Amino acid sequence: MRKVFVVGVGLTKIGRHFDKDLRSLFAEAALHAIDDAGGVKPQAVVVGNMLSSSLYQQDNLGALLADYIGLRGVAAFKVEAACGSGGFAVATGYSLVASRLYDVVLVGGVEKMCDYPTATVAAALAQAADAEYEVVYGASFPALNALAMKLYMETYGVSREEMAEWPVRMHEYASQNPYAQLRFRITLEDVLKAPMVAEPITLLDSAPIGDGAATLVLASEEVARKLSDTPVEIAGVGMGSDSVDTTTRFDLLDPLSVRLAAEEAYRRAKVEPKDIDLVEVHDAFTITGILSLEGLGFAKRGEAAKLVAEGAFAKGDKPEANLSGGLKARGHPVGATGIYQVAEITMQLRGEFPGVKASSPEVGLAQTTGGVLASTSVIILRR
Amino acid sequence: MRKVFVVGVGLTKIGRHFDKDLRSLFAEAALHAIDDAGGVKPQAVVVGNMLSSSLYQQDNLGALLADYIGLRGVAAFKVEAACGSGGFAVATGYSLVASRLYDVVLVGGVEKMCDYPTATVAAALAQAADAEYEVVYGASFPALNALAMKLYMETYGVSREEMAEWPVRMHEYASQNPYAQLRFRITLEDVLKAPMVAEPITLLDSAPIGDGAATLVLASEEVARKLSDTPVEIAGVGMGSDSVDTTTRFDLLDPLSVRLAAEEAYRRAKVEPKDIDLVEVHDAFTITGILSLEGLGFAKRGEAAKLVAEGAFAKGDKPEANLSGGLKARGHPVGATGIYQVAEITMQLRGEFPGVKASSPEVGLAQTTGGVLASTSVIILRR
Repeated sequence: MRKVFVVGVGLTKIGRHFDKDLRSLFAEAALHAIDDAGGVKPQAVVVGNMLSSSLYQQDNLGALLADYIGLRGVAAFKVEAACGSGGFAVATGYSLVASRLYDVVLVGGVEKMCDYPTATVAAALAQAADAEYEVVYGASFPALNALAMKLYMETYGVSREEMAEWPVRMHEYASQNPYAQLRFRITLEDVLKAPMVAEPITLLDSAPIGDGAATLVLASEEVARKLSDTPVEIAGVGMGSDSVDTTTRFDLLDPLSVRLAAEEAYRRAKVEPKDIDLVEVHDAFTITGILSLEGLGFAKRGEAAKLVAEGAFAKGDKPEANLSGGLKARGHPVGATGIYQVAEITMQLRGEFPGVKASSPEVGLAQTTGGVLASTSVIILRR
Repeated sequence: MRKVFVVGVGLTKIGRHFDKDLRSLFAEAALHAIDDAGGVKPQAVVVGNMLSSSLYQQDNLGALLADYIGLRGVAAFKVEAACGSGGFAVATGYSLVASRLYDVVLVGGVEKMCDYPTATVAAALAQAADAEYEVVYGASFPALNALAMKLYMETYGVSREEMAEWPVRMHEYASQNPYAQLRFRITLEDVLKAPMVAEPITLLDSAPIGDGAATLVLASEEVARKLSDTPVEIAGVGMGSDSVDTTTRFDLLDPLSVRLAAEEAYRRAKVEPKDIDLVEVHDAFTITGILSLEGLGFAKRGEAAKLVAEGAFAKGDKPEANLSGGLKARGHPVGATGIYQVAEITMQLRGEFPGVKASSPEVGLAQTTGGVLASTSVIILRR
């Protein structure tokens, strides 16, 4: 298998970018990544995006964005797996290089979610669920995750207070991340007293709506060695799925798609969970992050929330989780999120992350998902 | 580069499938392809689709469809490049096998367009154009192609009668293709007297709106030899782009994205245009097919329409073009179209195509595009 490296990263701060449209927000991140990769010209552009069609009536985003950043002519298309689109775009970009189709590929995610009223965005996000068997009955995306959270707490005897530790920690980390959307600290009491979104999920259990773009330049080993003194290897890629419709799950608390994607990625990278120093998990809601930690093999079933409440996975532990602030507080511009994660871990492995620094990372893992853990990708990175 | 083969194909007839939803239409084709591939279990599903988000409020289609056909758990995601989505899905599936990520990948396209009024579908299809710089000014997708057709006819002195030969021929072929949507013959006069859609494009210059699904099973050489007596090699893949916004084209009559995609595919397959026996080009409108023939190197600039009018590219010539009936008459369920093309050429190379048979094909080429020739993929297949 041909080796693939990350040789450039570019991020925008996540927030309300009312002054930029999709293409200009994307360009800000993409031109930075190309610059970071020594000005190399990518031969292909893979775009991760979920909402351009439903919110902006724009398809064909691959060619549109490639042209806008000066790459008219290159291979270009969009990859979509709902909120997990970014991670699948990274996996696709990886395969374009590993297959020898291209030597240099730009993978970029972009999402604008703040131009519309929240109800409009919520309806668009509900497209991650099953339109015919869930949404038609009135299920919102937070409501579906609330079912999982409630079942988790009841099944494993986890208290609301224990579940609240995660978002408190995420806000602490995000307060130090210049790219993060919610750069303020919160307390356990804040989480418990926050407005209820879908019982037991409160506002502070939920990732915010935000605009952002993140891009990577991927390259073959030969090119990477020329372009960068600090190339970071994509050591393993894995992808998995589950039913989109949660009512047909075999077991709502078994993060099947995460387990399968992780198994693939670990096998290909020839590592185990214990070898991972640093992880970014997909905590769109507190429960999503908790189930993801279990699916990745960092905790047994039903134990992750209690471990988090006891201080596990914090700065100094192994692995250190979501030092970026996670989807919860760094933010979650859906189709870009998986690319933010890989960019953050790349910066950590280079020793260049501008927020809370990982202790001494050698191997990092990014996990992102679409739907209620329905479409998951896992990317393992190595210094 | 690891070799990749088509070992199974499955198609639905294109038409009005009011009795099937997206998933059941997809399943009809997918289960047929898996059966055709000896019942092998694909490890990944790549879906080509454009309109599920805008017409059915459904994202996350990869996981949803994989689950529905009994493949819960596998890697699954969607690839989108407007009407060219299917071809890019094939290229992506190819790279997943060529990279050694997977040995067996199902690539499937599905589209349902007949459930809604034509105006709704036309608005969704306009998402292939630039929402901010074209559509907002009232440009419909046929109108943009009409500009190219008019410019082509004026620049090269091509008559309306000469341009009308193509759709007549497509209907003749489609009348013999059991999967085709428009199985009736038309005359040159029919084309000229058909209702005007956007001058000079008439209704019979335009691909119809239709529902359909097409799937392929791709496999590595080792697996292919076990599964099939007649594996067809994907000998080369190419992708190219152009500006989506036609007003910023360098030259509206230069099919840049087609040229670049073709150059890549020819180089990788180590063939030239003269080596191609059989081609399926993307004739969403007559002009699109004509410009595509030129971009692929089968005719010089400005000559394809006249050559067609003189009988070139018909059954018995080299290459033989669109024996399926093309988008014009076989039909154009947009995200599935590129997969129909590859399936048809595969069946031709196997000697199993149920319509007009190619003379003695060894090498075939499928070209599909999104937007006004903005996102093009070229797939070269070899017996």
